[in-house]
Amino acid sequence: MTAATSGLSDRGSYMKVDGKHYRTVWMQDDSVCLIEQNLLPFEFKLFEAASYRDTCTAISTMIVRGAGAIGATAGYAMAQAFIEYGDDAGNIAAARKQIENTRPTAQNLFYAVERVYNAGQQSTQSAIREAQAIADEDADACKRIGELGNDLIEDGQHIETHCNAGWLAFVDYGSALAPIYAAHNSGKQVFVYADETRPRSQGARLTAWELGNENVPHTIIADNAGAHLMSLGKIDMLIVGSDRIAANGDVANKIGTLEKAIAARYYGIPFYVAAPVSTIDFDCASGSAIPIEHRHPDEVLYQSGPNQDGRPEQIRVSSPGSDAINPAFDVTPADLVTAVITDKGIFRPDELITLQS
Amino acid sequence: MTAATSGLSDRGSYMKVDGKHYRTVWMQDDSVCLIEQNLLPFEFKLFEAASYRDTCTAISTMIVRGAGAIGATAGYAMAQAFIEYGDDAGNIAAARKQIENTRPTAQNLFYAVERVYNAGQQSTQSAIREAQAIADEDADACKRIGELGNDLIEDGQHIETHCNAGWLAFVDYGSALAPIYAAHNSGKQVFVYADETRPRSQGARLTAWELGNENVPHTIIADNAGAHLMSLGKIDMLIVGSDRIAANGDVANKIGTLEKAIAARYYGIPFYVAAPVSTIDFDCASGSAIPIEHRHPDEVLYQSGPNQDGRPEQIRVSSPGSDAINPAFDVTPADLVTAVITDKGIFRPDELITLQS
Repeated sequence: MTAATSGLSDRGSYMKVDGKHYRTVWMQDDSVCLIEQNLLPFEFKLFEAASYRDTCTAISTMIVRGAGAIGATAGYAMAQAFIEYGDDAGNIAAARKQIENTRPTAQNLFYAVERVYNAGQQSTQSAIREAQAIADEDADACKRIGELGNDLIEDGQHIETHCNAGWLAFVDYGSALAPIYAAHNSGKQVFVYADETRPRSQGARLTAWELGNENVPHTIIADNAGAHLMSLGKIDMLIVGSDRIAANGDVANKIGTLEKAIAARYYGIPFYVAAPVSTIDFDCASGSAIPIEHRHPDEVLYQSGPNQDGRPEQIRVSSPGSDAINPAFDVTPADLVTAVITDKGIFRPDELITLQS
Repeated sequence: MTAATSGLSDRGSYMKVDGKHYRTVWMQDDSVCLIEQNLLPFEFKLFEAASYRDTCTAISTMIVRGAGAIGATAGYAMAQAFIEYGDDAGNIAAARKQIENTRPTAQNLFYAVERVYNAGQQSTQSAIREAQAIADEDADACKRIGELGNDLIEDGQHIETHCNAGWLAFVDYGSALAPIYAAHNSGKQVFVYADETRPRSQGARLTAWELGNENVPHTIIADNAGAHLMSLGKIDMLIVGSDRIAANGDVANKIGTLEKAIAARYYGIPFYVAAPVSTIDFDCASGSAIPIEHRHPDEVLYQSGPNQDGRPEQIRVSSPGSDAINPAFDVTPADLVTAVITDKGIFRPDELITLQS
């Protein structure tokens, strides 16, 4: 598959790879096409999932990751199930369950699967159209988040972010990075401290790669360095994404977000969460009801990457006799969040409930 | 060099490797002998530094690391300089400067170098005896820290620690881990959450290895997981070491310590610092006067360890176009420290000044 076949128009000055604009996920015939994020930043390659089963594997193995990208991909997977099973309700329901089991914390996943499932009750074509609409809405929402969030950023500011909530984490634009891209493209000088975000290092790998692609000045830091930089007055604000926001404004996001929010409060630094309204789970009263995914200990005990010859290697970075626990997300209580930048406006966490439709 | 030649008596049930007791550093003839900590936990090997220059390299390349171990090693290095230069004051002074430049944050280093330098004004033999005395005092102080700190630990408690302040970080016993070993050996059930401690992963590599050797139940966590576990009530206390404590009780320790202290305060969890009195720099009024070492960005951008064939590999774990900054320490303000466990007793940070002799 080439970039040309992704069928996307050149949309302007950013979210390009080698001069071409890409979305992170799109549908082509009956296949779901994805940027293979496990290979980034070392290799840019596309992955084609021919069935909803392959698409499920792509989600669970993190070929695609990030709140909005998971949602759109899951929506497409649900559409693929309708393509495969038509009106076979039993198999459709089983496929839905399989898709929902890929990543338990991501609200956008459940949101997208439900919408496509409901649309598919009319026809397979309706399911496909709905999946496409979800992807388009995600891109539009993120674009709007960028425009709104840009107003919060002043020229010359230094912004810390955690994990990757850039365009790779959504269909396009990103959430936490969207305001940064908008500020940068509007001529403001911004500097980004990208937390490496252990154990999977999405900050060091994906956020740094995105920021480099867009020529946004940045540096990678160990997650441990955040509070130290705050104590020195080097951080003006934090912007992070979210995988699920509870109705009371509690925010589930990548493990380590909570530490940053607590440290930001301690130093009186604004802590913003950027997320489309689709990330809010109005059925979830508070953060304690959000299931926290535990991933394999090997993500902590081993690291992967190219060696000096460019050959992919997995190395042990821990004592061979020891085990690890690996919670993938944490919950930041609403009272630590300065505001949530959504596609519908910027809200205090306790105001989000007013967005319930 | 074999374990037998280390000339140390078997001292009981712990700090043993393959059934033999070791110190992390000792002098043999004119050489300084060290456990090669860069190879741990994958290989246990000794390193012999024949001159003070080799010993300086061992400190700066972190063959030896940790507050007390650096101090004792630097003391031995200063003694080696007297062995080499006798009463050549110019070369002695230059050697002192070289030793002091190896690691700028470690108080024990300056403390030990000064003591040996002063003793060496009498004779080279005095310098050697002083270096030996410093190492013995370090071991005794850590043993006492263990006994005193044990009283703070209740049966069944879960303790988080950061970096490695175990026996590998001192001459023997350790500081932060000494109370844990004492509690374990006195029959208390304790469980340790070992922060992996990026970028050099001393927690995942050294603390986990030590705890495994001593059969202390433990698990490795990504540094990002600390506050999450605290929020779930899974951490009863934190104990960390220190590289330098200012006169006002501010504590310099491995980068990331500050985040844990802030999170512990937020959740009302006791945050203890364990350190011998030799770690207190009474000439340093507050933490802002402590120089913070910045290490090479490659420590963040790359990781090293054995691959699946056991061959050492260095891999890139970050976007190739991006840089990193790598502060090695941070300063935890005194008011976040519940108490400091020293060899002279357990003190509130603002009481430490009473220990000034």
